[in-house]
Amino acid sequence: MQAPEPAFPVLEDASTVAFLDYRPVFPGHALLVPRAHVPTLSDLPDDLLAPFFANARLLARAVEEGLEAEGSFVAVNNRVSQSVPHLHVHVVPRKRGDGLRGFFWPRQKYAGPEAMREVQEKLRAAVDRLRGTA
Amino acid sequence: MQAPEPAFPVLEDASTVAFLDYRPVFPGHALLVPRAHVPTLSDLPDDLLAPFFANARLLARAVEEGLEAEGSFVAVNNRVSQSVPHLHVHVVPRKRGDGLRGFFWPRQKYAGPEAMREVQEKLRAAVDRLRGTA
Repeated sequence: MQAPEPAFPVLEDASTVAFLDYRPVFPGHALLVPRAHVPTLSDLPDDLLAPFFANARLLARAVEEGLEAEGSFVAVNNRVSQSVPHLHVHVVPRKRGDGLRGFFWPRQKYAGPEAMREVQEKLRAAVDRLRGTA
Repeated sequence: MQAPEPAFPVLEDASTVAFLDYRPVFPGHALLVPRAHVPTLSDLPDDLLAPFFANARLLARAVEEGLEAEGSFVAVNNRVSQSVPHLHVHVVPRKRGDGLRGFFWPRQKYAGPEAMREVQEKLRAAVDRLRGTA
């Protein structure tokens, strides 16, 4: 997402543009962005949810169809690790044995069920507050 | 997503459930799944796009609101690195300096503009075919 005018667009419609990332995880790695200024996923307005993610779905299909990918990785960084303050969805073509697995998921363990319960309660409470049902 | 009946749900509605991952990247890492069987993002039906991703947005907001995260990472593995054949969106709370940056984005370079053009043409053509406009 180095250029405001993307040099290598792969998809356009009324509300969305997608273009090739200049520094791909793998060739074909595309960035999908709303035309309207939306800083993060949290800020995506209701009326863009379906059209925006329909295009993420379309790109996930397209990398398999057009680039012989065996799958895809679709990801959004919000605020932390977000390189520019405009929502962008990464769609990365994947192949089995492409060597990426170990990079993505360094995992931890909870100390036990009580530790999980505590985090669950905080998250549920936040969901309820944000829904206005708390 | 080890259990069909999640032990630690954090969000439920008519079409969606979210629950804590047992092996989190960070505590609060949640998995959002459609109740209907949907193998990958490519298979998500139109009528679930908005409600499903509205819940992804809600969880991204909730980890910041409820877990004092400074941001979030929202990701889907399709087919490759996908642990179970049922669509699940990872929502991971992030903090600055949490050490994850280097893991996520091993980057390459294209050989040059012609290499980018070639990939762009393949991907655009696939998008057009899938849209039925080719």
